[in-house]
Amino acid sequence: MRERRYSSTSPDLLAAALFDVAADAGLENASVREVAKRAGVSIGAVQHHFSTKDDMFAFALGKFVDKVLSRLATVEQDDDPARALFGALSQLLPLDEQRAREAHVITAFAVRAATSPALAEIRRKTLFTVRTGISAVLIGIGTPEAETRAALLLATVDGLALDAVGSPALYPPEYLQHVLETQIRLTLTETDAHRREIELAS
Amino acid sequence: MRERRYSSTSPDLLAAALFDVAADAGLENASVREVAKRAGVSIGAVQHHFSTKDDMFAFALGKFVDKVLSRLATVEQDDDPARALFGALSQLLPLDEQRAREAHVITAFAVRAATSPALAEIRRKTLFTVRTGISAVLIGIGTPEAETRAALLLATVDGLALDAVGSPALYPPEYLQHVLETQIRLTLTETDAHRREIELAS
Repeated sequence: MRERRYSSTSPDLLAAALFDVAADAGLENASVREVAKRAGVSIGAVQHHFSTKDDMFAFALGKFVDKVLSRLATVEQDDDPARALFGALSQLLPLDEQRAREAHVITAFAVRAATSPALAEIRRKTLFTVRTGISAVLIGIGTPEAETRAALLLATVDGLALDAVGSPALYPPEYLQHVLETQIRLTLTETDAHRREIELAS
Repeated sequence: MRERRYSSTSPDLLAAALFDVAADAGLENASVREVAKRAGVSIGAVQHHFSTKDDMFAFALGKFVDKVLSRLATVEQDDDPARALFGALSQLLPLDEQRAREAHVITAFAVRAATSPALAEIRRKTLFTVRTGISAVLIGIGTPEAETRAALLLATVDGLALDAVGSPALYPPEYLQHVLETQIRLTLTETDAHRREIELAS
């Protein structure tokens, strides 16, 4: 369990407390009471910012997604498309303790979206944004079936995160890196041939 | 919400009730109280079979995994490896209402495994069994990197299930089938060339 200091209460600090409770004990334990306790504030202080638990969850997921998307946007540019894709997508895999905690929380929110329209809407937008970003890279280099392969690449990363969250011993970091590199290589199959076809046709 | 009749109490019937509660309202709502209510029995009757909630969860996940693995084992044989893989793996995707309910519950258990050693052990064995089964098919036809590609194929299916659970509108059944077919095709890339190399070398 990590110690974090919350010097005053704000929605952002409560979202951070919720993240910590969910990463340590599971999202199902992130009650208003537990989040207040972790933040060192009263239940009333939480209720002052969020009228329902669903509101609190939606705000926390929104903050969390913003943080991860900002990190994806600032990944160092690389002229090699395989390295560029690896640099971005490896941010979403549990390759160190911080990303393992994030993978646990994000997969929990992904499941919770099945029963929460507010979370589902945030999740839908996030998946769409990431898929579109990957797809743009693939279209740019002439990969065939760019949109389908982008959806697959994202699904692979999400699935590896899900599998690793519950079975870390089966999915150590080196292995996750290796399988992600393999998926990226399979994704780029026929890219050169397809690009030449496009260039010849234009 | 579905109606199911539980004429008498048994661990199997309680596992079925837990599945229904989790599919309808989320695994976080599958308390002993709610499972008893759904099964039409007293809380004491549940406690008679399971001394803790974690015991009840582990039993229910075990039964559920057995059911899905039996279904995978009885998928019609097909001489075409792509069709055989599709036949088996499409059992794990939310292609109809029943499989959508299953995908919701199985992904919820997968996340819960992060905080439950009993669930983690069942999940680890299941992933290992399915990965080994896919790997055996790939090795049999001479696919290169069979074990890595088997892990990727399983991760893709798990990730598509996770993405579809919270965003069904982004992942309708026809689309899921199409992307699974694409992943299987990418998985089988270079299989013929690799098999010829093996045959020449032997």
